[in-house]
Amino acid sequence: MSEGTVYTIGRQYGSGGRYVGRKLADKLGIPFYDKELVAMAAKESGLSEALFQNADEKASSSLFYSLAVGSYPLTGGAAFGAAEMPLNDQLFLIVSQTIKKLADEGSCVIIGRCADYILRERKDMLSVFIHAPIEARVERAVKYYKLEGSKAAEICLRNDKKRANFYNYYSDKKWGMCRTYDLSLDSSKLGIDGCVDQIISFEKTWKGYLEKGPSD
Amino acid sequence: MSEGTVYTIGRQYGSGGRYVGRKLADKLGIPFYDKELVAMAAKESGLSEALFQNADEKASSSLFYSLAVGSYPLTGGAAFGAAEMPLNDQLFLIVSQTIKKLADEGSCVIIGRCADYILRERKDMLSVFIHAPIEARVERAVKYYKLEGSKAAEICLRNDKKRANFYNYYSDKKWGMCRTYDLSLDSSKLGIDGCVDQIISFEKTWKGYLEKGPSD
Repeated sequence: MSEGTVYTIGRQYGSGGRYVGRKLADKLGIPFYDKELVAMAAKESGLSEALFQNADEKASSSLFYSLAVGSYPLTGGAAFGAAEMPLNDQLFLIVSQTIKKLADEGSCVIIGRCADYILRERKDMLSVFIHAPIEARVERAVKYYKLEGSKAAEICLRNDKKRANFYNYYSDKKWGMCRTYDLSLDSSKLGIDGCVDQIISFEKTWKGYLEKGPSD
Repeated sequence: MSEGTVYTIGRQYGSGGRYVGRKLADKLGIPFYDKELVAMAAKESGLSEALFQNADEKASSSLFYSLAVGSYPLTGGAAFGAAEMPLNDQLFLIVSQTIKKLADEGSCVIIGRCADYILRERKDMLSVFIHAPIEARVERAVKYYKLEGSKAAEICLRNDKKRANFYNYYSDKKWGMCRTYDLSLDSSKLGIDGCVDQIISFEKTWKGYLEKGPSD
């Protein structure tokens, strides 16, 4: 068993999940990937970064599917035998390859993008979900993302819906369900640093359990 | 802020959630309530224990509701203005009162029975959900509950369904969703003792965070 751990973090919008991941990576001295994944996938595939940005964490819609089938035989997609797929699906496959490659390089933190599902065969993956009550998320969104207070709740919920659609479309699990993740935490109860500590503590207990095996 | 904590534990069938709660209570030297709640509610209401056992963690069905409305004006139920309610709903209200009373008495561990929802106004409550992949639950169910291997998976899933129906009927939250709980853990990753340690560590971090307040 390698010493390394690949941490994947799903998160409700405004829960601070991204920041938890950032601080976790800093504390452990390992790479952190969020939007960076888009730029890397674009570079590796030779396709435009704008294409990936537009598709980032979005599911293919069925209308888009009808329009797109057969119309976008991308070079990158063709490498995966994906020439007949809708554009978003082809881009998802390219990002998946980037995520797999990064995980192969060693310990890291990856935010969203179905990474826990893409890497499900890895024995060294720890999947986390960060959430918080809507009031706490609105407060965070107003303070850090400068959203208008009156619109913040709606924006949080709309973004959650998008993330759930994306996740449920590309995986056979359900976004935001306990059983989808190894660990889930309410960030309003622990704060950002508390979540980081809790994830690190989970990882230590887990690795210890793997070594000594079940006693009950 | 009181020093005490009321721990509520929801669990997938076969995940070891009950045993986590039992060990947590033993380690902290606090009371543990599972089936005991049924006997206590029966005693306090003066109604038959068999009635409560039959209704334990079961939702009212709408058929049952039609048959039962007005037909079971229980003495215990009447005290809550519930004479017109279906039987299971009246029994639920009585168990709820028992749960509230026990929580008022101090730190304890309560298994299932919508306790996290019943006690949602308490600031000293920590709600936990324990789950595990179906393979691990089947292994546990065969080993400890002596279920037949070929039927174990079906029994696990059927019991989960019952628990979800019960929880979703009596609360406005969803059973098994991350956002419903403060903390959720995959017991197959940590073992029983690991889950206990993780819950204790969460509680310490949470109480510390409450005292010092958010820094980010």
